[in-house]
Amino acid sequence: MADYRLHCFGESGNSYKAALMLELSGCDWAPLWVPFFEGATRTAEWREGLNRMGEAPVLVHGQRVLTQSGVILDYLAEETGKFAGRDADEKREIWRWILFDNHKFTSYFATLRFMLAMKKMPESPVTEFLRGRVIDAYKVVEKQLTVTDWLTGDRPTIADLSLSGYVFYDEDVGLDRWAMFPAIDAWRDRLKALPGWKGPWDLMPMK
Amino acid sequence: MADYRLHCFGESGNSYKAALMLELSGCDWAPLWVPFFEGATRTAEWREGLNRMGEAPVLVHGQRVLTQSGVILDYLAEETGKFAGRDADEKREIWRWILFDNHKFTSYFATLRFMLAMKKMPESPVTEFLRGRVIDAYKVVEKQLTVTDWLTGDRPTIADLSLSGYVFYDEDVGLDRWAMFPAIDAWRDRLKALPGWKGPWDLMPMK
Repeated sequence: MADYRLHCFGESGNSYKAALMLELSGCDWAPLWVPFFEGATRTAEWREGLNRMGEAPVLVHGQRVLTQSGVILDYLAEETGKFAGRDADEKREIWRWILFDNHKFTSYFATLRFMLAMKKMPESPVTEFLRGRVIDAYKVVEKQLTVTDWLTGDRPTIADLSLSGYVFYDEDVGLDRWAMFPAIDAWRDRLKALPGWKGPWDLMPMK
Repeated sequence: MADYRLHCFGESGNSYKAALMLELSGCDWAPLWVPFFEGATRTAEWREGLNRMGEAPVLVHGQRVLTQSGVILDYLAEETGKFAGRDADEKREIWRWILFDNHKFTSYFATLRFMLAMKKMPESPVTEFLRGRVIDAYKVVEKQLTVTDWLTGDRPTIADLSLSGYVFYDEDVGLDRWAMFPAIDAWRDRLKALPGWKGPWDLMPMK
C-alpha cells in the first residue's frame, strides 16, 4: 500500500494541488477515485468518516486524515521539505497566497467552470458575476507575477502549487485567460517545466 | 505608539477577526481607520505600500506588515500564546477551519451583506445564489457545533475568532440565521461570554 493515499478525482483542481505536490516531491502515493458526480461527498459515510466539510481532496497518511488542500500542502511541505518556506516570515507569505487562492483565485473560477463546463448551465447573471470576480482575482496575481517569477519570490513553493489548481484545465468558460494575463501564462510555462510535472488528467482518475 | 496597529474599518468583519483577537489577548493595539468606501484600498498607495491584494485588514507590528486575517490570527497566536493550537495536529485542525471560513463561511456571507446592506442593491439571481451558498456553509458549521462547543474542540481558538467575523452584524440579508442555526447561535453566546469580548462597532472606527 502506498505511503500516501489521496481521495481525489481528475476534474477537481483542488485535488490536483495535492496530487501535483505528491508527484513533484517524489512521494510514494496513490490516488483513490472519488465518484463525486454520483454524490460521494454528500454521503453520511464521507461526511462522518472522512470530511464533515463534504469536500475533496482528503489525504490519508498513516493514522492521519487531512482535508483542505492548503492544510495538505503545508503538511507535505513539512514532511518532505520540498516547496516549503525557509523561515517563519516566508511561511506567512506562503499562507497569505494560499488564503487568497482559496478565497478568490481558485474559488470563483472553480465555481464558474463547474456551472458552465460540468453542469452545462447557460450563461446567467450568476456566471457573469463570477467571471467578474475571476478577472479581479487574476489581476492581483498577474500584478504579482510581473514583479516576481513565483508567487512569493524567486523559487516555487506550495503557494504556486495551490494557485496552479485550475490553470491547466482549458474548458471554455467565456474568458480568454492567457491572452488577458500573459504573466500568469508565463508562470504556467515555468510550472510545466518543473521536473516531473504532469497535468491533472495524468495524475488522477476521471469519470 | 501602540505595539500593534491595525488598518481596519468597523463595517469589515475580516478586520473584526483581527481586532477581536488583539483585544481578547490583551495586546497593546490601536485601530487605524481605512476609508474603504472612499476607495482607499484601490489606491496605488495601498496596493504598493501595504497590500497588493487590495484588501483590509493590514496589521503593522514593528517592521512587519501582515495581511490576510488568517495569517494575522496565526501570527498573533504565536506571539501571544493565546487561542493557539497546542500541537501540530491541532494547528492543522485550526487552519482547516480558517480555510473553510475564508473559502465559504465568511466569504459568501460578506459578499451578500455587502451587496444588500452596504450597496443597497436589489435582490437578484446573484444574491439568491450567494444566499444558497451561505446556507450550505452554515449547515457545515452548525453540524460541527452540535458535536463540539468550539470549532476544534473544547476551548476557543483562532478558528473560532476567524469564523466570528460576520456573526455579530445584524443587517437584514433575507436570512434568519439564528432561527435556522441554533448551534451557531449558542456558540455566539459563548463567544460573547469570553472575558473582554466586544462587538465590531466597539473596537473599530466606522464611517
